[in-house]
Amino acid sequence: MAKISVTAAFATLQVLLIALPALADPLPSWNDTRAEAAIIEFVERVTDPVSDDFVPAADRIAVFDNDGTLWSEQPAYFQALYALDRLKQKAEKDPSILTSDTLKAAAKGDLKGAMAGGQEGLIEILDVSHSGMSVGDFEADAREWLTTAKRPQSGLVYADMTYQPMLELLTYLRDQDFATYIVSGGGVHFIRAVSEEAYGVPPGQVVGTEGDTRYEAKGDKPTLMKFGGISFIDDKAGKPVGIDRHIGKRPIFAAGNSDGDFEMLEWTTSGEGPRFGLLVHHTDAEREFAYDREGHVGVLNKGLDEAEKRGWLVVDMAKDWNRIWSGKQ
Amino acid sequence: MAKISVTAAFATLQVLLIALPALADPLPSWNDTRAEAAIIEFVERVTDPVSDDFVPAADRIAVFDNDGTLWSEQPAYFQALYALDRLKQKAEKDPSILTSDTLKAAAKGDLKGAMAGGQEGLIEILDVSHSGMSVGDFEADAREWLTTAKRPQSGLVYADMTYQPMLELLTYLRDQDFATYIVSGGGVHFIRAVSEEAYGVPPGQVVGTEGDTRYEAKGDKPTLMKFGGISFIDDKAGKPVGIDRHIGKRPIFAAGNSDGDFEMLEWTTSGEGPRFGLLVHHTDAEREFAYDREGHVGVLNKGLDEAEKRGWLVVDMAKDWNRIWSGKQ
Repeated sequence: MAKISVTAAFATLQVLLIALPALADPLPSWNDTRAEAAIIEFVERVTDPVSDDFVPAADRIAVFDNDGTLWSEQPAYFQALYALDRLKQKAEKDPSILTSDTLKAAAKGDLKGAMAGGQEGLIEILDVSHSGMSVGDFEADAREWLTTAKRPQSGLVYADMTYQPMLELLTYLRDQDFATYIVSGGGVHFIRAVSEEAYGVPPGQVVGTEGDTRYEAKGDKPTLMKFGGISFIDDKAGKPVGIDRHIGKRPIFAAGNSDGDFEMLEWTTSGEGPRFGLLVHHTDAEREFAYDREGHVGVLNKGLDEAEKRGWLVVDMAKDWNRIWSGKQ
Repeated sequence: MAKISVTAAFATLQVLLIALPALADPLPSWNDTRAEAAIIEFVERVTDPVSDDFVPAADRIAVFDNDGTLWSEQPAYFQALYALDRLKQKAEKDPSILTSDTLKAAAKGDLKGAMAGGQEGLIEILDVSHSGMSVGDFEADAREWLTTAKRPQSGLVYADMTYQPMLELLTYLRDQDFATYIVSGGGVHFIRAVSEEAYGVPPGQVVGTEGDTRYEAKGDKPTLMKFGGISFIDDKAGKPVGIDRHIGKRPIFAAGNSDGDFEMLEWTTSGEGPRFGLLVHHTDAEREFAYDREGHVGVLNKGLDEAEKRGWLVVDMAKDWNRIWSGKQ
């Protein structure tokens, strides 16, 4: 009798141990809503070898926009705030670099004045603030800024203003043998400065807007130098092109938050077989920001209009997430 | 006594089993020369956790040129031969596309006449023969050609004219947790058409020259279309730029065969810590081709002049390799 009990207890323990991984919630910062269920249902379906929708690991490609999808983009893109800081420092040494009203406003920290020039003005600011240094020096400087400069509103350093639920989603997908890529309109070197530590995404899996980089071999120490000028804009219809250039396969999972991500989601979800499109909807004025159809950053119109028709999941930050920031406030 | 014998035999077996992997030659098509020894010595040094030169797996990046390094490039680049074939077919349907002497020569299969226009002429041929179709259709067509068209001289299909010793090197490095990338002056879509099956290199690890690709979303089926025009040339000083764009880390191992690879080897081997530069020297007129300082394809001058000073290994195909082709003749 004693012997049977031990065996039975052992069998029970085995059942518990096998059941444990299935019971553990891979997305603890997601509320128990339709959004979480839809994600998990999709991932289980494509990773189940006996499912009709099974996708081999080599084709489990997931792409994520960065600004507004993985980290905050309000009240301005982090990269724009960084550029303003660095432009100010440069102008203190050499005021002659401020050759336009946009640059003058930017160097004063006048965000509204600096942004008045639209995308063209932003590129002008990036040109002047990000050029004339090596890629290595730039990435080290950006890393320093992202991990030490604090946003006044939250008291958090910028690198900690990533969304905890999205970090869990990245980890969950990688645990299920997905390759996770960032596909961002932001500058590739700026994101790479922290992509590994902030997201677990190595530099080779960051696709972004590319500045003009040149190889210079003077003396013994060749260098990759950043120059002014943009050679590739990874936004809107540029995102599927960036995906083709860098990944060479159509993703099966795409997440974004603005109409700059529309074509990426369209390209991803119009392929054959199981596909998943996700839009982060900024509905949480209390914990983060509430914005969609209006403004100059992260406008979301077409995505909201077409999400239902296209079967894309719209994540309601206020309702679907029980925690926003990865950093502790 | 019997019991001791069994234990002793078991111990002997264990020793044998542990010793086996070390005894198996990872590079059987390489002769027992300095070249093979230098490669293995380097790999063992950077993968040995107690070595001063240990490199973590995440930084074990190896880059390989393609034409003349992984597959043959004589008497002409495979991609040029493919372009000529396809141009001829296109011109049979619509002769009006042949708007220059270069294109007319190319459509007649007159390789010499087609190549007389140099790089500009080659780009013109690629423009006309490779444009106006989707990336997917192009890759399928290139795969079909590479795996069925036979080179008259060897009787092998082009996809089998890869160098067996280099395939073994790719596999050996991956077995030692290197990530292997192709960094080629050839077109990225052409190489990707067979990179996985020919080299075990997935499309996202192929860096190459990039044509103008555009995203078109008409109706339900969005498409990535190839247009004429080159947006990035991944050759010479472009190779370190391509490496930065796609990999974002400096490699520790680089292999090439011509002066188009000089900057890639220079960039790779001028970094801190252990580095390896390798040049394939085409010395085998009997089994392959013998060429270096002269000609219009794969010219190698600067590399030969500086290899010794820079500590790069020059592989002598005739002496260092006991087999050339991966395909069986």
